[in-house]
Amino acid sequence: LMAAVPAAQASDVKIYGILDVGLRHAPNLSVSEDAITKVDDGMRSRIGFRGTEDLAPGLKAFFRLEHSLRMDTGAQRDSVFWDDKAWVGLDSQQFGQVMLGRLRSPTDEYTNGTRFEAFMGHTLGASGGRAASSTDAWNNGVYYISPAWNGLMVGAGFSAGEGTVKSSSGAHVEYTNGPLDVALAWQRDGESLSNQKSTVTLAGTYKLPVALLLATYARSTDVGTADSGERSTYTVGARVPTGSGEVRVSYRLTEDDQIKAVADRSSDVDVRHLGVGYHHPLSKRTSINATVSYDNRKTYTAAGATATDRSGPGFEVGLRVAF
Amino acid sequence: LMAAVPAAQASDVKIYGILDVGLRHAPNLSVSEDAITKVDDGMRSRIGFRGTEDLAPGLKAFFRLEHSLRMDTGAQRDSVFWDDKAWVGLDSQQFGQVMLGRLRSPTDEYTNGTRFEAFMGHTLGASGGRAASSTDAWNNGVYYISPAWNGLMVGAGFSAGEGTVKSSSGAHVEYTNGPLDVALAWQRDGESLSNQKSTVTLAGTYKLPVALLLATYARSTDVGTADSGERSTYTVGARVPTGSGEVRVSYRLTEDDQIKAVADRSSDVDVRHLGVGYHHPLSKRTSINATVSYDNRKTYTAAGATATDRSGPGFEVGLRVAF
Amino acid sequence: LMAAVPAAQASDVKIYGILDVGLRHAPNLSVSEDAITKVDDGMRSRIGFRGTEDLAPGLKAFFRLEHSLRMDTGAQRDSVFWDDKAWVGLDSQQFGQVMLGRLRSPTDEYTNGTRFEAFMGHTLGASGGRAASSTDAWNNGVYYISPAWNGLMVGAGFSAGEGTVKSSSGAHVEYTNGPLDVALAWQRDGESLSNQKSTVTLAGTYKLPVALLLATYARSTDVGTADSGERSTYTVGARVPTGSGEVRVSYRLTEDDQIKAVADRSSDVDVRHLGVGYHHPLSKRTSINATVSYDNRKTYTAAGATATDRSGPGFEVGLRVAF
Repeated sequence: LMAAVPAAQASDVKIYGILDVGLRHAPNLSVSEDAITKVDDGMRSRIGFRGTEDLAPGLKAFFRLEHSLRMDTGAQRDSVFWDDKAWVGLDSQQFGQVMLGRLRSPTDEYTNGTRFEAFMGHTLGASGGRAASSTDAWNNGVYYISPAWNGLMVGAGFSAGEGTVKSSSGAHVEYTNGPLDVALAWQRDGESLSNQKSTVTLAGTYKLPVALLLATYARSTDVGTADSGERSTYTVGARVPTGSGEVRVSYRLTEDDQIKAVADRSSDVDVRHLGVGYHHPLSKRTSINATVSYDNRKTYTAAGATATDRSGPGFEVGLRVAF
Repeated sequence: LMAAVPAAQASDVKIYGILDVGLRHAPNLSVSEDAITKVDDGMRSRIGFRGTEDLAPGLKAFFRLEHSLRMDTGAQRDSVFWDDKAWVGLDSQQFGQVMLGRLRSPTDEYTNGTRFEAFMGHTLGASGGRAASSTDAWNNGVYYISPAWNGLMVGAGFSAGEGTVKSSSGAHVEYTNGPLDVALAWQRDGESLSNQKSTVTLAGTYKLPVALLLATYARSTDVGTADSGERSTYTVGARVPTGSGEVRVSYRLTEDDQIKAVADRSSDVDVRHLGVGYHHPLSKRTSINATVSYDNRKTYTAAGATATDRSGPGFEVGLRVAF
Repeated sequence: LMAAVPAAQASDVKIYGILDVGLRHAPNLSVSEDAITKVDDGMRSRIGFRGTEDLAPGLKAFFRLEHSLRMDTGAQRDSVFWDDKAWVGLDSQQFGQVMLGRLRSPTDEYTNGTRFEAFMGHTLGASGGRAASSTDAWNNGVYYISPAWNGLMVGAGFSAGEGTVKSSSGAHVEYTNGPLDVALAWQRDGESLSNQKSTVTLAGTYKLPVALLLATYARSTDVGTADSGERSTYTVGARVPTGSGEVRVSYRLTEDDQIKAVADRSSDVDVRHLGVGYHHPLSKRTSINATVSYDNRKTYTAAGATATDRSGPGFEVGLRVAF
């Protein structure tokens, strides 16, 4: 047999992941209202490697590499392999945490996070795009997060510009107090050497005895190559425990305004999304998720008249395995 | 040292794989009869991640991700990273098993499997292409397998069409009784929106006191863009234990008929392959495999006259490590 | 919970890696003397899988797969995924070791190795390119290493040519005696069917009570498509322990001669590099590395007059985590 690696070494690295595949019957409204049946990922399936090391009392080093894949084809999801996460960092109880590498952006990590969406951002029912048009991950990133102080944490960081991309910067504040959990984030993304966009996001949950209520708001400005556009996204949701499972409801409204150019709405897309679903855990790690959705998608002429206005329901049932 | 991850978590995921590299001296008969010496993979080298979770008595969840690579260059073997396997599933003792994702096709998994070929499908000696021209893996797959009932199991599934590919469907039957193990599979592959092909395969092994006998048969119809073609593949083999090792023999015959178009044999390729080898285990997981082969490859003119007729021997010795 | 995999199986494969990210302020002298600030890898960040298996007393099998990535973007570093290492092998105490697959070349593995450079080849301070213009890894490789005999080891191997690449071959000698550690390597790389280049490298370290001294020399001949060129590289360095850390100094001189063609120096690049740094370990596996560098880069006209002559300092501080 293979020589036993000492236990202490073997446990340095934790392999983790979530794989989710389901049957989906839903239209692609950007093309038509005709529903298509397919086997598809209910979420971003992923596998990753992470570890932490105790350096001294109250001081840790940590690292993380995460890869996303498409379970329906086996293909890597993004143009780069470790697109989702690739970082190292130090975590001091006293001074806070600093991390470097390919990072999630502040709006994505702290307000667009899974804890602020009823479906945790997964399944056809989930309300995606909660951070308006902000960039979801940063290359060349450095981010600092303060220690918690009476439930309050702050963070700030940047993404160094490189080649044809300008630097980005951002910050966030989180506050937790009893049933309330709120987060505010801001970032300015360098899209190219001449072009930037800014986004403010606000998200919160409130725990009632019978349900968890969730809401997010995001607004991006200076969107598009002419910096003319704005995108606003609002979501509300609820998670209602029922027996061993949970009923989940999520609603999203996204509104674009003059993305292409001033007084030109031909690139604008407005979306309304309603998702209702049932999360049925088979264990702490494995679940079956059934969701129904109803979406409306509108596009516009340059002058602002409705160009297309498509609506339709969707259904999905999927199996999710976490490890 | 890195903080110890609790044992229960560390053992969630099993990393597994087989790596096989050898020295090979053999011709590429599609080009010439001249033998080429090279260092090459004796099989599809691979690394994967898998796990199972007990959900309840008689009910398990499982997942699997598998990647193939070329040990001679370090390159990923296929166009997508997790080309070989990417699935999740549920396994009920009472109701059977269902799996979703990027799956092996029925002919590949249940009749073209390694247990029906003398070399387990590996090394220069092995008879490849045992499932005629059927597709070996399905995107967007769902497959159901029944519980075993007196040695009998059945399964059926489909691959949802997407984009320019039509849906595929298939089924299989397996039967095991004492020294006999047989399997039958059928599938219809959607190659494009206008084009499909069908394949029937039959495979079996019979265990004698002195040897294991193996045989497969496969026939694909509606092959080629004009659906004019047929391909038939026959293999027979034996594994004969000798001392601590095993002598292995495998013979394959593949015959094409009018693949390109009716009354046009210019795309047809007929192959005869003989492989003889010795499998020398160094442990349960590591082995040295020495094989010799003799191949004949014929191509045809449109009218059916022989265009090329090339033959030649090959030799290979390789080291295989499983983990 | 996921079913526990038996401990013996779970420990078959060791996941290992080094991830290193830092803040860098340095010029790209091939473009200009202007320094650029960025977040970048301080070394080749990597993750790999390896294992050994005891086959018999004094006999082991081993394997290794290693992937390099860019922590600043999450991208795979090389054109193929397992570019750095993909091999299997047998290791006999009595007869030596043989390995097959995608291998490091002799000059890279045995004389350009991390133990012969003050910064272990990492950080902005390190002297790269220590093996002149030899190829650093071989496809289709086979390599044999003898057992040690009074501190002496020898090795030899080849890379089988394939497609448009000619075969390569090489050998090395290592000798260790008390404070002295020296290695000599030679290889001839088949770059194409018509073109080869040869390289000789010599490297050594000497351990004094107060410091470790390091030096390497490499000379490539028959460089360039016309085989007209030569490249010589010299490095010297020292590691001086101070308190819990180490001061490191590395100097490199690289000189090109008529790489493009006889009497044509227009492709030649001469480089002088000085690196000084401090290695501050936070644990055996995690460290902070601060380095300063000063580089000079000269290019030439065909006739040999100076075309560009650029110089400048650089600074880097990085966090490195090994696992």
